[in-house]
Amino acid sequence: MSIEFIQLAHGSGGSATTKLLEQIFLPRFRDIGLQPENDAALLPIGNGVTLAFTIDGFVVEPPFFPGSDLGSLSVNGTINDLAVMGARPLYLACGFVISVGVSSTMLSQIATSMQEAAAASNVQIVAGDTKVVESRGTTPQIQVTTSGIGIVEAIEPWHTPRVRPGDQLILSGTIGEHTLAVMGARHSWFQHDPIASDCASLYPMLVPLHPIPDIHWVRDITRGGLGGVLNELAHATGYGIELDEEKIPISSLVRGWCEILGYDPLYLANEGKALLAVDRAAASHTLSELGKTVLGRHASLIGEISSDEQPVVILNTSIGGRRLVMAPAGELFPRIC
Amino acid sequence: MSIEFIQLAHGSGGSATTKLLEQIFLPRFRDIGLQPENDAALLPIGNGVTLAFTIDGFVVEPPFFPGSDLGSLSVNGTINDLAVMGARPLYLACGFVISVGVSSTMLSQIATSMQEAAAASNVQIVAGDTKVVESRGTTPQIQVTTSGIGIVEAIEPWHTPRVRPGDQLILSGTIGEHTLAVMGARHSWFQHDPIASDCASLYPMLVPLHPIPDIHWVRDITRGGLGGVLNELAHATGYGIELDEEKIPISSLVRGWCEILGYDPLYLANEGKALLAVDRAAASHTLSELGKTVLGRHASLIGEISSDEQPVVILNTSIGGRRLVMAPAGELFPRIC
Repeated sequence: MSIEFIQLAHGSGGSATTKLLEQIFLPRFRDIGLQPENDAALLPIGNGVTLAFTIDGFVVEPPFFPGSDLGSLSVNGTINDLAVMGARPLYLACGFVISVGVSSTMLSQIATSMQEAAAASNVQIVAGDTKVVESRGTTPQIQVTTSGIGIVEAIEPWHTPRVRPGDQLILSGTIGEHTLAVMGARHSWFQHDPIASDCASLYPMLVPLHPIPDIHWVRDITRGGLGGVLNELAHATGYGIELDEEKIPISSLVRGWCEILGYDPLYLANEGKALLAVDRAAASHTLSELGKTVLGRHASLIGEISSDEQPVVILNTSIGGRRLVMAPAGELFPRIC
Repeated sequence: MSIEFIQLAHGSGGSATTKLLEQIFLPRFRDIGLQPENDAALLPIGNGVTLAFTIDGFVVEPPFFPGSDLGSLSVNGTINDLAVMGARPLYLACGFVISVGVSSTMLSQIATSMQEAAAASNVQIVAGDTKVVESRGTTPQIQVTTSGIGIVEAIEPWHTPRVRPGDQLILSGTIGEHTLAVMGARHSWFQHDPIASDCASLYPMLVPLHPIPDIHWVRDITRGGLGGVLNELAHATGYGIELDEEKIPISSLVRGWCEILGYDPLYLANEGKALLAVDRAAASHTLSELGKTVLGRHASLIGEISSDEQPVVILNTSIGGRRLVMAPAGELFPRIC
């Protein structure tokens, strides 16, 4: 069924977003260059240099939450879209759409966070734009759209065409923190034991992997969560995926709150976690390199690409069952990134 | 006085916008690379290659208006930010923030316009992002933030440090059409004799100027209009500007409506017009090159950079008077670009 009117689900990063892209944007933009399967476009510019180029909009509400805020999120989110393509992030450009009535104090705090996050990653914010709009209701008061340029450093491309059966799937750390941090701040949950967002630059964790030729594919796990990203991977490669539930790192705090709230951690967004598909022969070396980094110390081999030509994601549960992990269909968590 | 809360005027492109930049963004972003004096950042990437990189948000309401729409505006606006830096626009990335309830028909029309505008300029749309938000009230229903990359082709940089007293100011064509087109569509004015936006890519008009070393500075005249851009130029260079009112090209239709509506055409936004500062020796050659192009056929020498070290803009009026052209202070025309 074709889309008639846009709904929140179309922004979820799940199957409704795929539908929106397939109905409206892909038919029009694919033949003028769109590379929808990558987090950043790869642009050869001669002399063996390949640029990575990306854009990401951030509409998180509230703009401040434990562990991060809209400012660092908008910088690190875009840095990560470049980093997972094997690129070194270099330059950012930031477009602000600000509602009338926003305080300069709030805007200054956001800008300071952006400055600090960029400086920490040695990335320059070189261009900007501000628009001011009237606004009411639940629309976020400050929207930041951040575009980034990087230079590809990985010796082989980290992209979908290189994924094949037998590839090992490595998750760089625990899942679920970011969504719970934002939802907690929004609804004043977890006051005594706040959950902090995992928002961070993935670049330092991924640099040691640049020289490894057997890294096939890397993606950060944001909107739609691990379940969303795995379904996209299955869909894009045409291969099935087998997961081992016990190997998926989840903190006891996140697991406990997910049980109470009825959330499936597989669909929670993250802002400092990567999923990697690597050749079987390179898996233990990759795990060891990740394990030496701060962000990758809980990295875990969670499954593999199967030779099943049904592009479905199967979870082998801790009690010995097998269940299908569907693509997220609706929008469980609006305005979290 | 420092800003406490954001108002519409802070998005005007005039003195309030300058204040917002100076209070909040410049102190934080300048030391991490921001190049606020240019429409696009210039990034040398080795081998004599310089990238131009820019971002621009578009919040026009209504999204369709005579001569253009949000789609072509978001593509050509970003192309123009690159073109006025002497660059060839190559790649765009587009971030959409869409309100719940927007029809797929409307979104498809916008996407088609973007596709057509990009294809017409041989520019690729290589990356995108969509977010969906709840929304009410007067906030534009579809916001597009477009980032662009180009390669600098002009043999000398077109930027502020090269502007000097005696430089001739050339305006590439008539002013005022874009604002009147959007305001006309918003308020159902001019139904029998609609005014079409001048929205267009400036690149073809500027290409013949790339080999001319005496082009010192080029800027497109959008928010804040000619009055805004001239005041920014005076402020940035520290020199005064003398204008000849009779030489400023304005169509009789625009002039007539401005008189009726009480608008000063000097502050109306344009989306297909450039202002150039060129060495006196190169002025007639530049005018002749511009005159050979479709967009530049009404190009006119409108004034010069004076040796006055007061950075003010003086208009020599058609009746022999002299008046000060102030920077636009408030927001006369919200949501026009």
